Amino acid sequence: MLTRIDHIGIACRDLDTTVAFYRATYGFEVHHTEVNEEQGVREAMLRINGTDDGGASWIQLLEPIREDSPVAKWLAKHGEGVHHIAFGTADVDGAAQAVGARGVRVLYDEPRRGSMDSRITFLHPKDCHGVLTELVTAAQDAPGHGEHG
Amino acid sequence: MLTRIDHIGIACRDLDTTVAFYRATYGFEVHHTEVNEEQGVREAMLRINGTDDGGASWIQLLEPIREDSPVAKWLAKHGEGVHHIAFGTADVDGAAQAVGARGVRVLYDEPRRGSMDSRITFLHPKDCHGVLTELVTAAQDAPGHGEHG
Repeated sequence: MLTRIDHIGIACRDLDTTVAFYRATYGFEVHHTEVNEEQGVREAMLRINGTDDGGASWIQLLEPIREDSPVAKWLAKHGEGVHHIAFGTADVDGAAQAVGARGVRVLYDEPRRGSMDSRITFLHPKDCHGVLTELVTAAQDAPGHGEHG
Repeated sequence: MLTRIDHIGIACRDLDTTVAFYRATYGFEVHHTEVNEEQGVREAMLRINGTDDGGASWIQLLEPIREDSPVAKWLAKHGEGVHHIAFGTADVDGAAQAVGARGVRVLYDEPRRGSMDSRITFLHPKDCHGVLTELVTAAQDAPGHGEHG
């Protein structure tokens, strides 16, 4: 059902400084940046490795773009650090339904848009031993990807 | 230098309960368990996927075995959740030296024994934007592995 560690989401106060740290310290390069207005974040995706399900594992750096975003509230409470982890699946809808049926609260009624046109949902950290857990279907994992060019 | 997300280390109060949660909720199976007396933890390794450097990515669940262990102190302060992240490398000694030369505090003078006969070191979270970061060379990554049988 879940076939990879897709990414580790890290909350930071200043995206440019944090990107510079990851590049200078480890040599990780930015593959993609975007603003997700709905999530209230500006983010950078650093590709770390490919995975044997045909996907990849990433570090996702997240800077809040408004004070009422969930990541801004989380930063105010916790300081910088690991905000969430994400498991990759070819079928986020089915995975969310299966996990929900096992008694874990799924935070969205329907998956929403995540980084790089992925589809994502989150599981309640109190139901996951304190870990905010995301389920994600990457754009290239989605059925029909490539059929439209 | 660093070629994969090797694992996500998650601190929990009760290893058996947490292992049962990961198995029942996601279908992840325990590949390995051990007690690391030096680190003061009992741990379970759940293999999530293979990686394109020939390694794998894992969830590492950690339960403290004594109250003065670093993980016990961390749990008392933070509650259950993501304790650290780990990047895999074929050369933890060289990676630690390189990262240290860039001004990040490396917590051990020499790498120590980690899960499954790996060699590990940690970077100070205050130098890594709040993320306790481990560098790890898995046993199968080490030069000479396999030469002795």
